[in-house]
Amino acid sequence: MNSAPVSRRARPAKAPLSRDVIIETGLRILDQDGLAALTMRRVAQELDTGAASLYVYVANRDDLMAAMLDHVLGTIAQPTGGSWRERLVALVDATVAVMSKHEGLALVALGGIPTGENALLLFDRMLALFAEGGVDDLTNAWAVDLLYLHITAAAAEQSAYNTKDMPQTEHVADVARQFAELPPERYPMITVMREALLSGEGDARGKWALRVLIEGILATPVT
Amino acid sequence: MNSAPVSRRARPAKAPLSRDVIIETGLRILDQDGLAALTMRRVAQELDTGAASLYVYVANRDDLMAAMLDHVLGTIAQPTGGSWRERLVALVDATVAVMSKHEGLALVALGGIPTGENALLLFDRMLALFAEGGVDDLTNAWAVDLLYLHITAAAAEQSAYNTKDMPQTEHVADVARQFAELPPERYPMITVMREALLSGEGDARGKWALRVLIEGILATPVT
Repeated sequence: MNSAPVSRRARPAKAPLSRDVIIETGLRILDQDGLAALTMRRVAQELDTGAASLYVYVANRDDLMAAMLDHVLGTIAQPTGGSWRERLVALVDATVAVMSKHEGLALVALGGIPTGENALLLFDRMLALFAEGGVDDLTNAWAVDLLYLHITAAAAEQSAYNTKDMPQTEHVADVARQFAELPPERYPMITVMREALLSGEGDARGKWALRVLIEGILATPVT
Repeated sequence: MNSAPVSRRARPAKAPLSRDVIIETGLRILDQDGLAALTMRRVAQELDTGAASLYVYVANRDDLMAAMLDHVLGTIAQPTGGSWRERLVALVDATVAVMSKHEGLALVALGGIPTGENALLLFDRMLALFAEGGVDDLTNAWAVDLLYLHITAAAAEQSAYNTKDMPQTEHVADVARQFAELPPERYPMITVMREALLSGEGDARGKWALRVLIEGILATPVT
């Protein structure tokens, strides 16, 4: 083992700053240490530079988060094979999966019309799939908007579970105990339907929810 | 005008601390100064006490936010008159409205199974309405879960618009300009469907989305 100290001069040159390097560093901090740790200052530290240098590439923390979200959306492969509906389900599932993997990113998407280039590509693909399924333009436009809202909400919910200290099964057991103690005269339905309310894995519920949305969209033209 | 200084002794006695007083103070701070201003320290200041005194009544800021959400859900009137479907739509609309009025409260609801007493009352009412509509127990349980996820997402989105500096119409105009400049070979659907994508007031889209969900639920029994 060579344990001789490395001279400062012998260290590799710093990687040049770029928007991409900043985005990747932001994602690494988020995944290792959570949302609270993600500050411009921390990103600058990791890149061995000053926070002021970052502002050449990203406007602020919100802009960085939006760029991180769009970067992550760019990793989704376009599904191939199967019916339009199978490809749509695969695309939605993949999007929920990548969004929920990084704490807080799904919430960024909840704030407005997406404008990132990869978010727009995702929209374009969903529009093409509904069009292939025979959905008219106006209904299609509103459908993709609704589906994206559902994707972000499902990802945010999943992400919240992922970052909780308590495993989901334990949380469900807690809720079951609480439901069992509710006064039946005030909560008649929950008391009776307790088992149904706590039934089903999140995955089965997620698949069903997506079926509901697609069936509902096909059955409800806007005009 | 009597401008004589009031002696400290003549000031009215402090209102006694309670969970309700803390919740109401938290809501006032949130609505006046936004989510970032809502700290345990600020609530304590407003109540002319120390932060340590608050912890007798609320465990931490997350607990306070959850209590604020449930308080707000307690202000929703039970809809009367009309079909089960009309009452369900009225209930959902009212819930989205109260949740979106207070910045950040909708996001609290995204984190897990609701356990507040007013959130559970809302669940009980939605379950009763779907049961009246002939939905079986298992489908009903999953349906209410899906509907609550949609409510929280719609409220979070609405709330994000409410707190943006830019009015929604201006935001849409910005997006329209961006869409007009997209390369058609990369975004063929968005380019062609630009007008449909930006059509419709948020309100019309929201009503349609709820119709989609209800139709989809009725058409998609779990078993």
